[in-house]
Order: sequence, then C-alpha cells, then structure tokens
Amino acid sequence: MRKIYLDHAAASPLRAEAFRAMLPFFEEHFGNPLSVHSFGDAPRTAVEEAREKVAQLIGATAKEIYFTASGSEANNMAIKGVALMNRKKGNHIVVSAIEHQSVLNPAATLEKMGFTVTHVPVDRYGVVSPQTVAQALRDDTILVSVMHANNEIGTIEPIEEIARVVRQTEAVFHTDAIATVGKIPVDVKTLDVDLLSLSGNQFYGPLGSGALFVRRGVRITPLIEGGVQESGRRAGTENVPAIVGLGVAAELAQKEMAENIEKLSSLRDHLIRRLTHELDHVILTGHPTQRLPHHVSICVEFIEGEAMLLMLNMHGIAASSGSTCTSKALKASHVLTAIGVDVALAQGSLVFTLGRDNTVEDIDDVANALPAIVRRLRAMSPLYPAATAQA
Amino acid sequence: MRKIYLDHAAASPLRAEAFRAMLPFFEEHFGNPLSVHSFGDAPRTAVEEAREKVAQLIGATAKEIYFTASGSEANNMAIKGVALMNRKKGNHIVVSAIEHQSVLNPAATLEKMGFTVTHVPVDRYGVVSPQTVAQALRDDTILVSVMHANNEIGTIEPIEEIARVVRQTEAVFHTDAIATVGKIPVDVKTLDVDLLSLSGNQFYGPLGSGALFVRRGVRITPLIEGGVQESGRRAGTENVPAIVGLGVAAELAQKEMAENIEKLSSLRDHLIRRLTHELDHVILTGHPTQRLPHHVSICVEFIEGEAMLLMLNMHGIAASSGSTCTSKALKASHVLTAIGVDVALAQGSLVFTLGRDNTVEDIDDVANALPAIVRRLRAMSPLYPAATAQA
Repeated sequence: MRKIYLDHAAASPLRAEAFRAMLPFFEEHFGNPLSVHSFGDAPRTAVEEAREKVAQLIGATAKEIYFTASGSEANNMAIKGVALMNRKKGNHIVVSAIEHQSVLNPAATLEKMGFTVTHVPVDRYGVVSPQTVAQALRDDTILVSVMHANNEIGTIEPIEEIARVVRQTEAVFHTDAIATVGKIPVDVKTLDVDLLSLSGNQFYGPLGSGALFVRRGVRITPLIEGGVQESGRRAGTENVPAIVGLGVAAELAQKEMAENIEKLSSLRDHLIRRLTHELDHVILTGHPTQRLPHHVSICVEFIEGEAMLLMLNMHGIAASSGSTCTSKALKASHVLTAIGVDVALAQGSLVFTLGRDNTVEDIDDVANALPAIVRRLRAMSPLYPAATAQA
Repeated sequence: MRKIYLDHAAASPLRAEAFRAMLPFFEEHFGNPLSVHSFGDAPRTAVEEAREKVAQLIGATAKEIYFTASGSEANNMAIKGVALMNRKKGNHIVVSAIEHQSVLNPAATLEKMGFTVTHVPVDRYGVVSPQTVAQALRDDTILVSVMHANNEIGTIEPIEEIARVVRQTEAVFHTDAIATVGKIPVDVKTLDVDLLSLSGNQFYGPLGSGALFVRRGVRITPLIEGGVQESGRRAGTENVPAIVGLGVAAELAQKEMAENIEKLSSLRDHLIRRLTHELDHVILTGHPTQRLPHHVSICVEFIEGEAMLLMLNMHGIAASSGSTCTSKALKASHVLTAIGVDVALAQGSLVFTLGRDNTVEDIDDVANALPAIVRRLRAMSPLYPAATAQA
C-alpha cells in the first residue's frame, strides 16, 4: 500500500544531506569539543559552524544561539530561565491561551512557586491581538511569551506588533517559533524578540536537536546546570552529530524556503478547498490566510478524530489530531477550546502537516478517501442521527 | 602519527553495533512514537525495547527508566525534581563535596531558592564515609546525593553503606552513576538508591543519550515539562536513534563487563605502576584499590596539567586534566581540593581514562613519553628550582 505522510509536525524524516554531514561524528570524530587534545578539534569546529548556520537562518549572531536537545527544552529554558533570573524585578508572566504545553506547563509550575500568570485570550481564528497583550501587561510583568505560529491550527501570530507593545515595558519577550523556523522567514531583529525557541526536526534536521536564541544582554538562569558548555547556559557534552545535522538542515531550509512555501501553500489550499467543499459539517480551524504554508486543520462534526486517524491509517495515510505531543491523550485540545470550538466538535479534530515530498496526488488521495471514512464512521455514531435532524 | 586515546570519560566513540541499530531510525523509521498511525509503530517498539535493556543493565524495571539527553540532564532532573517536589516536607539537602557540577550547581541554585545544602567532606582518597553522611542528616533532610564513583579521581563510593544510613530517614537517595554504569556492576536494588543517573556515551552509546532511574513510588517535579512523553516526566519528542543506540550499548556493556573489567584494571595497574615509579614528585589521586577499572589519575608537581596535555597531544596522546566538563577552565578542581591536594599540586592533574580498544602498547607509549615531557616542562618552569632544592 502506498503510504502518504501528512504529519510532518509530529516528526519528519532526517534529510539526506544532514545525515551525510552527521556520519563522521559518530565513530570517527567522536571527541568532546571541550577537549584540549586534537580529538576535540573537528567536533569543536563543526559545532561552531553549525551555530553560525542556525544564527543565519534567524538573523541572529552565533553567540546568541544556545543548542538544546529539543524545542520543548528550549521553551522550558526560556520560560523558567527568564522568570527565575528576574524574580526580584517582578513576578508577573503573560502567555497566550494557545501556547504549547512546553510553555504553559512551566508557567503553571512557576505559578506554584509564587509567580502570577495571565493567559491572554485569542480570537476565533486563534489570533493574539496586541491590544489584549497590552491590557495584560503590568508594572511587574517580567516575561511575555507568544508563539510565532500555532502547531494545532496553523495561525501565524502578529509578533512584530506584539513586540511593539511589549517594548513599552521592561518585560522580556519570548516567542516559541518551533512551528515557523525553517518554514517561513523568521528574523529575530524584525520580530524584535529577546528569546526564540526552535526545533531541528521541524525542518528535516535530526531528532534531539533544538536551540534557544537569547539576545545579547538578556540574562537567564540555566535549566540544565553544571558545565561550561554553551557559555555555561546549558550543561552536558554537546550532541555533536545532532548539532551538525541541525546546521545543515538550517542552511538548506533557508535556501529552499521560497520554493517550499510556494509549493506547499498551493497544496495546502487545494486540500482545504476539497475538504471544506466535499465534506459536510466540517470547519477549517485557525486563520484562513494568516496560516503556515504546510498546515491544514479541520474539525469534522459527529466523529472522533482518533477514529478518523485509524481509518486513514488503514488507507496508508498518516495525519494527526490535536496537539501532536498529547495525541495519545485525546482530550478537547486547549487550543480548540480557546478559539471557541465546542467540546463535541473539538473531538473531530484533524491536522494535516505537509512536507516537501508531498505531491498533489497525495492530497487528492486524502481528499478522495476522507468522505467515505466520514460516512462510515457517522453511520456507526450514536451522535449522527442528531446531525441528520439538524441538517 | 599513531593516536592513543585515553580520554574515554570525556567522550567515547560510538560502538559499531549501536550505530548499526540506530541507522534505520533516521530516515526510514522516522516517526513520532506517540503517533496513532503506523509511522509511530517501529519507533515506539524500539524505544520500549531500549528501555527494557537499560533497565536490565541496572536491575530496574522498564517503567522506572526515564530517558534524557545527557547525564547532566539526569542529574539536574533528579536534584531539582526531588527538591521541588518535597519542598513542603523539608528544605535540607545533603551532597558530597566531590559531586559533579551538574549536581553541585543545581544544589546551589536551590540554595538561592531557600533550600539549605550540606556538603559532606571526603577523606584523602575521596571516600564519603557513611558516618559523615549520618552526621549531616537532619529531620528536614529531603534529599541525599552521593556519586557512585568520581570522574576525576576514580574512587568508588560505598553507596550501599550510605544507603543504610539514609534509609533510617525519610530522605530520597540519589546517586550519580554516570562514571560506573556500563563499567562495573550497578544494581539499583543492591545499592538501594531511589534515583540513579547514567549517560550512554560513557559506555560507547551515542552522545545525546542518558537516563534517570526513578524508583517506583518516588515523585519528582519534571525539569522539562509539557508533553506526555516519559510518563509526563520529560517532555520533547523522543530522540529515537539515540535511545536505540543507548539500548544496544547497555546490552553489550552488560555482556562484556567482566572481560572489560579484567582487561582494563590490568592496564590501569600497569600504567599506575609505571607512572608512580618512573616519575618523581608524582602522586596517585583517588583510592588505590577502590577505583574504577579504567581510571588513572595523578598529580605531577611543579607543572601545569594543561601544558602536559598539549605536549602529550604532540605525541598523539589524548588525556584530560581535572573535570572533563570544565577542562577549558583550568582552575584547581574542587575534587582535588576536597581530598586535600594543595592548589599548586592540583594544577598538575592528569587523568587517563582507558577504553576497550586500548592495548598494553598504548600504556607503555604513554609511560615512555611522559617522563621526558615532565623533564622538559620542569626545565622551563620557574617553580622547578624549588623542587630540586626539596628533592
């Protein structure tokens, strides 16, 4: 059976160029970059070259890039690191209601430690308005964190406009750009953020690779302490192969970005058009135009997302439902709740994240398969008679 | 020039069997283990098989193993995780004076947050006595952390005896076993510890692999929050290739352990014998017999360790000085200070960590090269006339 992978936000295949670049650093150039002897030379040079490449992808300088093992680690490092460093200045934190759990959960832990957290609401498209952020800001606000784009509904947030609001205060501004870096242009100067999280696997780099941008002069308390690596901000021997792979993936993502955006947004629009026209009782979630070029998210009424995923899987189609990191725990997603999707409809969430190898045939196969799947599932659903009555 | 690598504690080459096992998980089985669709199946199975292998290596059950990206992360997760979880029970923490910085620095951060930390002294061999731990324990002690073996001086600690003392209290007992797991027998039941940190690269697994054993029933606050991975205790998409490599390395380390111990301790004793006999003004640091089978550490008087490392490097020999994670910042090691080595002598620290590919020729080459290096450096040293006078 032909396999169609439309779940690139959950995991993406490592690209061949990155893998090739990593290979010498497993067995041959295995040394510790900190070593005084020559075994450290090639790994050290390779790590610094990768740092330069990652910096270039986001318009930063190499010294502002701190490698982590994941986007989640970068988010935790940012949220906890800024809060604990600035405790004496204030204890108020502002986050959007639709942040990833790797932002929301650290914020909740900080709340238990005495910080106060304001969750800024979003509109029905998932947009965080600069005005609501402005209303949430207080004299003791030390940190604002708003994601660059949402992983569940694809909406791209107006980070530049939000930054203008935050810049009128002393608060540090963090953006979780895990869903955008390598996919759409991201420039830390244009966005005017102090910290930015990214994950390598989101743009065909290796698992185990991520980074936190920390603007020069911004101070954070380290999350993983105990070594001089990463300028003392992140202990642990560098995962040299992963960092090398991240660097190559960053370089190529930049080079191929315009082409990928054009190709993917065309496939995305085709899939959205077909799904919203050929399925009944379906809504597009997230913003209709201000959305990630590779991201299609819908809610199908009267069906559970997981049932659809299993049926799609029987057709060789891989997709996701709700947040990929919690898809094993299918509850009503906090993101869908925040944009006003009711709990029943939120159960029918489907997320397709397209990748550079997808073709229009892939899209058509999915669009062809889904109506029949929906009909079959609705026929088995105790909820469906209500739908027929409503329709 | 023939290269002789005697710095296995700093980094070790990934073993071929582990590398081979990892290969399919980069490009082919790239899926997210949490995925509902079939792309998640092979990665999920592989991660759980690896968890079983790591558990077996240390006598734990698979459910007690939490994968991390490094030993440093595991140490941070243990120290901060236990302290923050048990804050209401007490705020006193006991650590040994010679713990790795990835234990000491988190403890220092906790001190700033209101915890109290007692640093238990060691004897001149670096041994932590159960009696001194007993004296440090208080009614409000919530955590005791003593490493299984020290990475700088090779001393193996009497963890079982220390556990007996800790068990008379409610305190949680953690051991940093990064230097021992995969090298000497480690059994969490025999050692009677609640938490244990390990690092895959220490036994020829990949960089970016580590784990924390958390005994069933012991609760910790997560360090990296925001996902259901690792039972909600460590967020971030699993680094599947790294975990697979860790599993294979664990399995093989167990199988080959007896043989390696025999071979390496014989090489170790040969190197110690030659160095202590053929160099003057040299001392062995750490315990003469209760030490890691692959570990030789000395202090050479009237010389700086870094100068020796650079000269050894010119002979193709890779060694280390002081803690490998801080070797770029050559200060008097806190470990050497704790065992009573004076600051001047501590500058001349050299650490050789042997590996399974080392031969008696390697050892003899080092032992042959070092006296001439020492003579040359001393001839250039302003300190040396004092030595001649003393001798």
